[in-house]
Amino acid sequence: MLQLYFSPMACSLASRIALMEAGLDAHYHQVHLLTKKVVHDDSDFHGASPKGAVPVLVLENGERLTESAAVLQYIADLKPETGLAPRFADPDRYRLQEWLSFIGAEIHKAFLFPTFWYKDDGSLAKPRARIAQTLSVPAAHLAGREFLVGHSFTVADAHLTWALLLLRPAGVDIAQWPSLSAYLERMQARPAVREAIATEMALRKTVAANPA
Amino acid sequence: MLQLYFSPMACSLASRIALMEAGLDAHYHQVHLLTKKVVHDDSDFHGASPKGAVPVLVLENGERLTESAAVLQYIADLKPETGLAPRFADPDRYRLQEWLSFIGAEIHKAFLFPTFWYKDDGSLAKPRARIAQTLSVPAAHLAGREFLVGHSFTVADAHLTWALLLLRPAGVDIAQWPSLSAYLERMQARPAVREAIATEMALRKTVAANPA
Repeated sequence: MLQLYFSPMACSLASRIALMEAGLDAHYHQVHLLTKKVVHDDSDFHGASPKGAVPVLVLENGERLTESAAVLQYIADLKPETGLAPRFADPDRYRLQEWLSFIGAEIHKAFLFPTFWYKDDGSLAKPRARIAQTLSVPAAHLAGREFLVGHSFTVADAHLTWALLLLRPAGVDIAQWPSLSAYLERMQARPAVREAIATEMALRKTVAANPA
Repeated sequence: MLQLYFSPMACSLASRIALMEAGLDAHYHQVHLLTKKVVHDDSDFHGASPKGAVPVLVLENGERLTESAAVLQYIADLKPETGLAPRFADPDRYRLQEWLSFIGAEIHKAFLFPTFWYKDDGSLAKPRARIAQTLSVPAAHLAGREFLVGHSFTVADAHLTWALLLLRPAGVDIAQWPSLSAYLERMQARPAVREAIATEMALRKTVAANPA
């Protein structure tokens, strides 16, 4: 069985959504990202991944795959009939990769990442100043479109759904982009997405109550 | 003919290296990233790409593809016989995607990006503190390996070569990771890599002399 190392509401949520949308069972290992401990046995997470970052997907052959862009495409390709990624010969496959990169680099690393790690306004001024321009890209794209790529849900939507959910705790109100608000509402209405979020929100409260 | 919007020594260098390694002709449009102008006709770069970021690859059908991870895979797949990317059914394809994501997110966006945009030590402390851990990942991987993925040059090597070249101006001496120093030397010994870098270094001097 596949195994996913995750932290509640971290970017690994997108991989959980993808697994659930694909109907794939997996064993989930919760990681505490500050202590770098695996919760169920208090082992060092670096043993599972030298990077110390989630997601880590343990494949059926025991190999470990990291980085959302790779993990999400791997999961999608296990169940090509679900359409979670355009097939390889489809030009839309590159559009999927384009969105995965943009979400991972421009929204996650250039905005969410500094927002949650830096505490002073000086450091935060730059990412805050950039985020409106960044979000205008998916906002314009989603005006009149239901999904990021093609005409059905893909793992790029799983990735963006996670990123949009994190914007509120990062201090950005997406109500200023109606196409993004409506999109997030549509995505959250999907049973697999709703269940994945509910599971991780419940776990997150446990972590917050007992941060060790 | 393919067209590439680039800025000298920006991350679009990886796409130029990929094109040259693939033996693909392209028309290159230089962009001034601060003014967001296309150099040859002083037009607004946002007309070519609303994101205002390089690389932008204009495909044969006129569509525009952005984000290094997508552009590099697209270029590689135009010439599968060059081995610039493992073929889609090859499990190493996900390793390629894993490295492209790691280089784009962890080295570029989480280190090089803040290093070149923030000026104060307070903002810079966090990325500087992380870079050694980040670079230990490819350093460990490349100890005893010639290339990032498989046994030949791929677009992930083009991407990492660019990132390593930028570390010195960002204040990081890669001599402390002998496997990375040796790797960069090997990559720079490749004729296509050497020519791509020489071309952009010459153009960069022009930009520095006349920043408008």
